[in-house]
Amino acid sequence: MIAQRLNALRREMKTAGVSAVVIPQTDPHQSEYLASHWQVRRWLSGFTGSAGSLVVTDNDALLWTDSRYFLQAAQQLEGTGIKLMKDGLPETPSISHFLTHTLVKGSTVGVDGALFSVSETAALRSTLEKYGLNLNTSFDVIDNIWTDRPDLPDAPVFVHDIKFAGESATDKIRKILADTAEQGANAIFISALDEIAWTLNIRSRDVNCNPVATAFLYLSPAGSTLFIKKEKITPETAAYLNEAAVKVADYATAGEFLASLPQTTKVLIEAIRTSGRTLDLLGSRAVVGASPVPLLKATKNETQIAGIRRSMEIDGAALVGAFMEIERMMRDGETLTELAVSDILTRFRSQQPNYFDESFETIAGYGPHGAIVHYSATPESSSTVEPHGLLLIDSGAQYLTGTTDITRTIAMGTPTQQEKHDFTLVMKGHIALGTAIFPEGTRGGQLDALARQFLWREGLSYLHGTGHGVGHFLNVHEGPQSIRLNDVPATLVPGMLTSNEPGLYRAGVHGIRCENLVLTVPAFTTEFGRFFRFETMTLFPFDRSLFDTDIMTAEEINWVNGYHAEVYRRLLPLLTPEQGEWLREKTLPL
Amino acid sequence: MIAQRLNALRREMKTAGVSAVVIPQTDPHQSEYLASHWQVRRWLSGFTGSAGSLVVTDNDALLWTDSRYFLQAAQQLEGTGIKLMKDGLPETPSISHFLTHTLVKGSTVGVDGALFSVSETAALRSTLEKYGLNLNTSFDVIDNIWTDRPDLPDAPVFVHDIKFAGESATDKIRKILADTAEQGANAIFISALDEIAWTLNIRSRDVNCNPVATAFLYLSPAGSTLFIKKEKITPETAAYLNEAAVKVADYATAGEFLASLPQTTKVLIEAIRTSGRTLDLLGSRAVVGASPVPLLKATKNETQIAGIRRSMEIDGAALVGAFMEIERMMRDGETLTELAVSDILTRFRSQQPNYFDESFETIAGYGPHGAIVHYSATPESSSTVEPHGLLLIDSGAQYLTGTTDITRTIAMGTPTQQEKHDFTLVMKGHIALGTAIFPEGTRGGQLDALARQFLWREGLSYLHGTGHGVGHFLNVHEGPQSIRLNDVPATLVPGMLTSNEPGLYRAGVHGIRCENLVLTVPAFTTEFGRFFRFETMTLFPFDRSLFDTDIMTAEEINWVNGYHAEVYRRLLPLLTPEQGEWLREKTLPL
Repeated sequence: MIAQRLNALRREMKTAGVSAVVIPQTDPHQSEYLASHWQVRRWLSGFTGSAGSLVVTDNDALLWTDSRYFLQAAQQLEGTGIKLMKDGLPETPSISHFLTHTLVKGSTVGVDGALFSVSETAALRSTLEKYGLNLNTSFDVIDNIWTDRPDLPDAPVFVHDIKFAGESATDKIRKILADTAEQGANAIFISALDEIAWTLNIRSRDVNCNPVATAFLYLSPAGSTLFIKKEKITPETAAYLNEAAVKVADYATAGEFLASLPQTTKVLIEAIRTSGRTLDLLGSRAVVGASPVPLLKATKNETQIAGIRRSMEIDGAALVGAFMEIERMMRDGETLTELAVSDILTRFRSQQPNYFDESFETIAGYGPHGAIVHYSATPESSSTVEPHGLLLIDSGAQYLTGTTDITRTIAMGTPTQQEKHDFTLVMKGHIALGTAIFPEGTRGGQLDALARQFLWREGLSYLHGTGHGVGHFLNVHEGPQSIRLNDVPATLVPGMLTSNEPGLYRAGVHGIRCENLVLTVPAFTTEFGRFFRFETMTLFPFDRSLFDTDIMTAEEINWVNGYHAEVYRRLLPLLTPEQGEWLREKTLPL
Repeated sequence: MIAQRLNALRREMKTAGVSAVVIPQTDPHQSEYLASHWQVRRWLSGFTGSAGSLVVTDNDALLWTDSRYFLQAAQQLEGTGIKLMKDGLPETPSISHFLTHTLVKGSTVGVDGALFSVSETAALRSTLEKYGLNLNTSFDVIDNIWTDRPDLPDAPVFVHDIKFAGESATDKIRKILADTAEQGANAIFISALDEIAWTLNIRSRDVNCNPVATAFLYLSPAGSTLFIKKEKITPETAAYLNEAAVKVADYATAGEFLASLPQTTKVLIEAIRTSGRTLDLLGSRAVVGASPVPLLKATKNETQIAGIRRSMEIDGAALVGAFMEIERMMRDGETLTELAVSDILTRFRSQQPNYFDESFETIAGYGPHGAIVHYSATPESSSTVEPHGLLLIDSGAQYLTGTTDITRTIAMGTPTQQEKHDFTLVMKGHIALGTAIFPEGTRGGQLDALARQFLWREGLSYLHGTGHGVGHFLNVHEGPQSIRLNDVPATLVPGMLTSNEPGLYRAGVHGIRCENLVLTVPAFTTEFGRFFRFETMTLFPFDRSLFDTDIMTAEEINWVNGYHAEVYRRLLPLLTPEQGEWLREKTLPL
């Protein structure tokens, strides 16, 4: 079946004079998570992982994916004839390298220009041209061969009430256009789905866990247009958009619209979150610059912050129920699998007010599975949790009031000294970052080592980021800020919600991650300027049995005790007496 | 007199059709410190500071300089008609902004293209063009108006013996050309004076404190040429260069040489340390890329490292003598000025074996002067040191065996609690950075916050970098690594010598800086990869009276005691009995 699909693709390639095609895992909105309509790479290759690109040439088909998917890809690609290219290994060439060293001069590489960002397109074209290869960005043939391709999602769009969002679409549009004008543009074209959802205070169910609607948004003082599948617009939403002076047009007409704009219209687009196709359509009308939306979106207002606090309380209360249930099953000797852990969490969360969805697929990794950083249990892999070792649970929910994302690592039996030591090193970093005070202008990358220093000192490390931005009833991953090994230019400003999640992964043994969400808030102003700090928002205890207080400072122990006291105080009103008693024990001082 | 000079310049501007000229503080080698021949901005403006650019238009003359020079510039510019533009203040426009908002469309800005790097030239041209202004990079008229301009320096060039340098010029050239070839070039043109000195193992006295020779260096497998004033080449040096297969040509002929290269010659140049003039001369023969020299130069070999260790011992021993003399003068009630402190340090250092020069002008700042970050005492400013308050002394020397750079802050009387608290916060940062362990691939910017965290926590900060690279018997500031607030892509690798110098400056009160040089060395290798640490190289005690042990951890106190014990052990063999007794007291455990 895969072979048939690839052959159909090769026929299209032949017709178009294309020698190789690159099919990435994204959509025309440069999304991280995709609606089924855009799962082209999955359909063509049979590989279901969330990251990876397929390259098809006349004779070859190859799939590049990273280490989290090596095993899964190997299994899923078996028998398809598609070669697995293990991205990140020194012996694996990049896709560009492969293309430039395989194709004969004068050959053409075909891509769907909607699936490559402005920057990616420029980089790919420049590399190919160096080797005398051409890039055809109009090779968009999937509809011809994927005859039963799922439609664009038609889940209804609904309004995210201003009582949750805290700021009207009109006000947001005004701010965005003011900034756009400062950049010498008189309009802005927004492709990123979460940016559109935030700007208009609309939500939908187009992407699993991401409450967004598939759309493009054009804003200008002369008039604004939302390009979206008409079926998604309910009468209520239509009336709402009309009131916000936003016209609605069909999703498929966005391209024509851009192409027909007067040459005097200067349209701001962002190079990473806009497709090369869009740039081609705009031509000299495009102003490639910094979109004001990510920073505005990341900087939560008072209403959102109050909602986030509330979300953390109801999320913490749900987790009390869920973790008690996990403990009960273990105590009663019932079989508890990783998948069951995930189900329990969802069950408790979904009973909470304003619950909408999970914010991502739960990661419940027991023992060695915990050491697989992006592990997601499948019916085949799902381990049974035993009364020893560590269980890592990374999960979150979408509430109308805010998005949560929390990781706890718990001991299923009496922890070993090694488990306690590892856990405590991770927590020392979590505390050092969480209690940092830093001047205005500080970037996340400057603080990252605070979370890693204790691990590094013992020759340990983790390779994922320490902190990502979190949306408000929106994507659990958002920019512009980031706390990670590489430098990201955005500075941390009050109102930003960011994760604090150092970890440690011992392959084949266990994985540890300790994650709270933290809000950047003002600390104080001195003659040296403004200083900020983090306020921890997430409310749920860490496993007391895993702390090795011998390697903790008094300040660190005090922080844990103070945090636990606050968790108890804030969650207690939402708990049954039995739950309250459980939480009291879990939050006793170390 | 200044007015006459500016008018002469304006006559040249008129002739050339230039409406504004920018005169930066640099030379055709993009040097930080300049031979007198290149002190054009100083000659034209009368301002003697080490940083600042002069802009002259038909009607105006303006000097941009930063906060360290606001006072000095105001005084020196008085009566010249040159306006002081305080760089870094929100109300001060950038030079580009001034030009683009002052000049009428179609005007031409003139610069000497040799004094602007490839990057600076491109940025200036692009900004000017946006506003319809032209850039003339051939406006090089100073020789016409500066009739008594000092010649290029003619201090002799001498060979830095391989017993100090540890690697022959031939070997270095081979490595450089191998890397050059990998970048698709078949030659490299080096403009930076310290890179040339390092490559050829030659030194001279062209720039105060920087033992470099004014030259350009062209390297290619087909033959290499040093462009240098012939008078500087002694018979010994000529023989040495001949043996290294390096031809010598006159300094002034470098341009013609580049312009006459065959079009097939591809010449690697670096965008920051090469002039725009050079790029113009090379045209399509230029490959603008990363020069391999900075990293090779920064990574000290075993011979250099042994020399650095020796340099630290003799430098520390000299400082024992100097600090004892400072104490004696204070005790005996003799008048001690900031300038005298500087003289004492030079006197003791210059008696040491292999001493060559200071590595920079000593900063001796007493009380409020210590809070002026780049303070340099002049006969007019030089304070008398009194028996109270803090004295900050930042100084260093050039030895044939290595370059030193050390800052100590000492209490001149019984320190106040505030002085101790401030000093100890700075030291906590110094210790945190100095004892850091970090994985291969770590950049200095990732570690910077370790040095600042304790200050930040109390709303304090310092705005200078925490660490700069240090040359080997070469410039006291070198790249590519840097430990600072902004991110610099170079990673820290074993063999790099870097300063560790956090500080705290309370305007009008005192300044504190604690600086040692640290060598990056391997720490250990684990399943998580290679880890590095810093070995502290500088050997001189910190002022024990300034530590507030109440706010120090046991580890921090142990570090100080361990460091002091090593200082005592390593310096004792070089000291007189009286000096040894002094040092013993200064290094007693806290």
